[in-house]
Parts: sequence; structure tokens; C-alpha cells
Amino acid sequence: MSTNGTLTPFSHTCIIERDIIEGGFAVNEKEISLAVIKRLPRYYRYLGELREKGVERISSKELSEQMQVTASQIRQDFNNFGGFGQQGYGYNVKYLYEEIGKILGLDRNYRVIIVGAGNLGQALSNYSDFAKRGFLIEAIFDVKPELIGKKVGHLTVWDASLMEEYVTAGKCDIAALTLPKENAPAIAAKLVSWGIKAIWNFAPTDLNVPDHVVVENVHLAESLMRISYNLTEKLKR
Amino acid sequence: MSTNGTLTPFSHTCIIERDIIEGGFAVNEKEISLAVIKRLPRYYRYLGELREKGVERISSKELSEQMQVTASQIRQDFNNFGGFGQQGYGYNVKYLYEEIGKILGLDRNYRVIIVGAGNLGQALSNYSDFAKRGFLIEAIFDVKPELIGKKVGHLTVWDASLMEEYVTAGKCDIAALTLPKENAPAIAAKLVSWGIKAIWNFAPTDLNVPDHVVVENVHLAESLMRISYNLTEKLKR
Repeated sequence: MSTNGTLTPFSHTCIIERDIIEGGFAVNEKEISLAVIKRLPRYYRYLGELREKGVERISSKELSEQMQVTASQIRQDFNNFGGFGQQGYGYNVKYLYEEIGKILGLDRNYRVIIVGAGNLGQALSNYSDFAKRGFLIEAIFDVKPELIGKKVGHLTVWDASLMEEYVTAGKCDIAALTLPKENAPAIAAKLVSWGIKAIWNFAPTDLNVPDHVVVENVHLAESLMRISYNLTEKLKR
Repeated sequence: MSTNGTLTPFSHTCIIERDIIEGGFAVNEKEISLAVIKRLPRYYRYLGELREKGVERISSKELSEQMQVTASQIRQDFNNFGGFGQQGYGYNVKYLYEEIGKILGLDRNYRVIIVGAGNLGQALSNYSDFAKRGFLIEAIFDVKPELIGKKVGHLTVWDASLMEEYVTAGKCDIAALTLPKENAPAIAAKLVSWGIKAIWNFAPTDLNVPDHVVVENVHLAESLMRISYNLTEKLKR
């Protein structure tokens, strides 16, 4: 391994990245730190754009300039997956894109349902970008009579009473919860009992689900609070 | 300072938190680590709920059980802000809620505009929760003739050509970008030149803005990729 791309044992040290120190436990050298995992979707997005432009090879220096990450950070990150590149020769864009896609589990499709057909639920069903990545939104449910039967993109809003049969039949992997926070914990518990594997939670509340269920929260109010915090900090200077 | 709640100098060590090591630079003891800042919105949410229920005092043990964070983590976090509590007496909920609110910059209002009146833009304008926190959505803009003039909650969609005058007049602090990624960088550059202070970016692209402008990204596709990654990891076990 070259000095430029030394594999840091994440269990014993912290990676210093601009003004953040991040790291993760490593049970063995093959386990990848959470900090690296967090960066993978961004690499994947950039490599996808390069691929669309027909770029076949890219050096860590060029990628570094485009992504505003240091070249040594990029080399270090990719070394976690065996390097992907040859010294002085750059990375094969298509190969790297596909390998990172595999690590992210994007080499297969996921069936997604949306629980709550309000504006946010409707917005998510209309995102064509998700299908391109393999996240297929196949059904949208609501309890409100005025929404049931409404056309939302290529879907029709179904009565939430049909959800149990749908999920129990194993017809979906991920449920996006775009409903009021008061209803979210109870609906999440039902979805889990029907066998859902993952919940994409937009309700501003924490969900207590068993360990085998993946929960990913999108707490928009907390995102706004990070803005107000940063604005306040900048005013102090 | 008690042994239970020793203030760790974040510049010299990493906080070990479940399976994540996080930390941040500290120029002096008063500067707070990014890891703590990230947890504040969640504390704020829980304390807000306790306050609504009329709870006046809570021990770190009780708060710990509700939030599923260790009591020592809570004590350590709060010690960053001078402690807030007395040994064996618990925390004053209202005081703690207000102090964390001040740190997060929530003791004032922020004027927000929404750029892009599609489903997501409409969803954001209808979130009553944001106004409660002091984020007042005061205008929504679009370029599409079929959307201009449309009623969205308490607002009417305005022609995007009016945006320059609105932002230049200092009528808003934060712009939420809910428009296609192709248009986002150019619109962001214009908003910055008109004096916007913060951008809440929902477009799946990175924005290059000067240091004095706050950018907060909500990359939904990356959030989905964290789900697929975690589902894939669980399948391996």
C-alpha cells in the first residue's frame, strides 16, 4: 500500500476532515467506518454524473477539485474497498460507480409504499429520480375519503384499510411515513407486525422498532434548526 | 464539576457514543462539539413535548429512558452549557428548553421563502410546525404560468420575476430551493447576489456559495441510499 493511500485502522484513530472529526468502530479491517459510508452516496452521485457525460477515467486530483474533498481523503476512502485505481492512472468511472452502487445495495430494486397522501406523500411519489436508483414507488395509501381514488402521478391513492393485505403479502420493502406525528408510532408498529423491512420516517417523532427493521429519519424541523444555529453563530463573529 | 459530568476537552479526545465516534474541534472550552450540536434539536423536541404535558422537572435518568440515550451522555452534553441542573434535583424543563432554544437561535423569527411551487414546495408551505418554531414562510415563487396565482395554504404563488426585488429589499433570511437540480446552482448564485443569508437546498446537487451563506442540504435520494445500504448489511448477517 502506498503512503498516499494508507489504510487507517478506524478502530484506533479519528479521521480529521476539515473541522469535523469522525470515525467508527471496526471489528476487523474489512468493516467500513460510518464516516466513509456517509460519504458514499455523494461519490455515487458525482460518478453517476461523470458517467452520463461519457467520462471514462478520473484521477483523485480531478475528482477532488470537483467534489471539494482532498485527494488524499478520496484515496483513503476508496482504499477501504480495495483501492479501485492504479497509481498515476486514475479510477475507472464505470467500475467505481458500479462497485459503490453494490456496496450501497443499489444493484437491486426496492419496492416502496407511501403512507399518507398529503402534499409531501404526493411529492415523493412524483420523484422520478428515485425509480432511476431502483426505489420503485408502487402504492400510496391514505385514510381521508377526499384523497382515496385521487390520481397521483402514475398511482391512485388507495384506502389505508388495504395496506395490511398488501404489506403482509410481501409486496413492499420500504414504507415512507408522510403522516401526522400523532399517528406515526401506531402505524409504524402495525407495519412492523405485517413484516415491513424498512421505514423512511418523515414524521417529527422517534419510532421504536425492533432491531431487524431499518429506520431512516428525515426530520425537517431539525434541519431548519441547524440553519438557525449556523446563522446565529455567524452573527456572533 | 462532579465526576459524573466531567467536561471532556473535545479537541483532545473523541466521544464514544454507541458505535459511533464523533467529536469536533474546540478553539476554547466554550466552543461546543458538532456532535453535541447535532443532538440539541432532538433534546429540544423532547423538552418541548414535556413542557406541553406540564412537566416541570426531569432527572437525567428519566430523560435518558425516554430518549434512549445514556444518562451520562445527557449530563455530559448539558455540562457544555453550564450544566442546567443540580445534582439529585433534576433539570428545570422550561429553563432547559429555553436555553437550548437560545443556543439553536430559536429565540427569534426567520423569514423563509420557497423557490419552486411543485408538490414539495407546497408541502413545505403547509407545515404549520415550522411557524411554531419561528420559521415563517412568507412567500412562494415559481416560473410556471399554471402555478402563478395558485393558492397554497395562506399564500399565493408569485411570479419568480418578483423575487429579486423581494430578496434585495431584505424581506427574507432563508430560501428553500424546491426546484429541479439543473436550475438550482444558477438560482442559488442569484439569491446570494441579492443578499440571502441561508439556503435550504432540496435539489440533489451541491451548491457553491460564499462562506458567509449558510447551506443546509436535504438530499432525499442519499437518505434512501442509507436505507438500501442498511438493508443490504442486515441481509448479510
